[in-house]
Amino acid sequence: MMTMEKAQKIIEAGIAKAKEIGQPMNIAVVDVGANLTAFMRMDGAWLGSIDIAINKAFTAKAFDISTLELGRNSQPGDQFFGIYVSNHDRVMIFAGGVPIKMNGKVVGAVGVSGGSGEQDQAVAEAAITAWS
Amino acid sequence: MMTMEKAQKIIEAGIAKAKEIGQPMNIAVVDVGANLTAFMRMDGAWLGSIDIAINKAFTAKAFDISTLELGRNSQPGDQFFGIYVSNHDRVMIFAGGVPIKMNGKVVGAVGVSGGSGEQDQAVAEAAITAWS
Amino acid sequence: MMTMEKAQKIIEAGIAKAKEIGQPMNIAVVDVGANLTAFMRMDGAWLGSIDIAINKAFTAKAFDISTLELGRNSQPGDQFFGIYVSNHDRVMIFAGGVPIKMNGKVVGAVGVSGGSGEQDQAVAEAAITAWS
Amino acid sequence: MMTMEKAQKIIEAGIAKAKEIGQPMNIAVVDVGANLTAFMRMDGAWLGSIDIAINKAFTAKAFDISTLELGRNSQPGDQFFGIYVSNHDRVMIFAGGVPIKMNGKVVGAVGVSGGSGEQDQAVAEAAITAWS
Repeated sequence: MMTMEKAQKIIEAGIAKAKEIGQPMNIAVVDVGANLTAFMRMDGAWLGSIDIAINKAFTAKAFDISTLELGRNSQPGDQFFGIYVSNHDRVMIFAGGVPIKMNGKVVGAVGVSGGSGEQDQAVAEAAITAWS
Repeated sequence: MMTMEKAQKIIEAGIAKAKEIGQPMNIAVVDVGANLTAFMRMDGAWLGSIDIAINKAFTAKAFDISTLELGRNSQPGDQFFGIYVSNHDRVMIFAGGVPIKMNGKVVGAVGVSGGSGEQDQAVAEAAITAWS
Repeated sequence: MMTMEKAQKIIEAGIAKAKEIGQPMNIAVVDVGANLTAFMRMDGAWLGSIDIAINKAFTAKAFDISTLELGRNSQPGDQFFGIYVSNHDRVMIFAGGVPIKMNGKVVGAVGVSGGSGEQDQAVAEAAITAWS
Repeated sequence: MMTMEKAQKIIEAGIAKAKEIGQPMNIAVVDVGANLTAFMRMDGAWLGSIDIAINKAFTAKAFDISTLELGRNSQPGDQFFGIYVSNHDRVMIFAGGVPIKMNGKVVGAVGVSGGSGEQDQAVAEAAITAWS
């Protein structure tokens, strides 16, 4: 089960990766109910990415899928095109939201925003390795 | 006329199909006024699909058309592109919302979300066969 | 843990009480994450109460308290006055939302709307007795 | 200037007080721009209070006043009655949001939600002592 302590460790792991990359990030963690558990904005991280990080985490748990993968199915002409207006505009369809799995079940998610899609994704993937 | 009892039967038929497919679904039914009559989330179905199932049902009755068909006319360059931000972002333009017809009139709709577009559509179509 | 089957039984118990009272109701059940699990609108129940029933259930889990009790602390001059605009206007502060407890923990909630406060409360309280 | 590190210390001080009181809390910190810097939900804290804690912090910086004090001027008949629907319903007018001052200037704010008004206020006041 997601706890505050686990969420903190996930964020810390993300921060370490962000520092390595040299790009300040917003990092959010949600629990199994897609509800926010913890959030940190590194100094200098984009203000507009606060909301995006939180909603990437929401999206990754809401659909038990990474936002990168969801985005691949949500382009014009794709099977989920238009999904981004659902859930009161909280569905993010670009890289940076990653579900956290335990024994095959999604138990929460992390959302990262503040850099390129590649950077956000790298930080999110580094962050979830701290789950245990 | 849509009733709670009919809506329950429609949802039950949808659940049976979802179990056959092996994918847990969110299933919603709206009445002739596009107002929610019944909703069920099968155990393990995506949380983000609660809103989507309800809004697919809304959309299918709101425009008396399947969301799959509406989506075909709502891609970039199409005649309805941009419709998804109308009605307070409740218009869903991908498969899974199907109107229920009686004597050529639309009397309600079902909305299904929880799998691929193909799966959602199959469950919705199975669900409406329970209307009588 | 809340399941679709349990939610259905809770709603059925609420419907039985509503029939006894002779007032059609909207009844919603949410899980431990305050996410909608099931919803039924009895024939003739108020349309405006669809949203209210769902949000009463949300509120009762979101704050682990009945909406009746929350309302007693949310009048002008009270410690929570103004709480109703939080959570995107989803906080209901009048009778009809009741948390479901198991071993002292809140595991979900029911929300009922369609009659007087007294009627809504009576149906909600009858509904949760079906939890087991 | 508010930094992530300072925000973390503020939250830690708040958590210590919350543990002393024995009531799990949601704690948020915003910077001089009223933008979220950090947030933590203690295990078992109310889900509905995530939004409230964040918005109490927003409010305390947005108006450079504690939400308790703002609330005293926002009751029916008061000079600011109705202010809570401004700013997209983000203005909280009950205890738990406290501005952080340095040399007479407000440099950020903390928002706490998860208990009674008195408890929220006590945790918020304890939290801001960690500012230095």
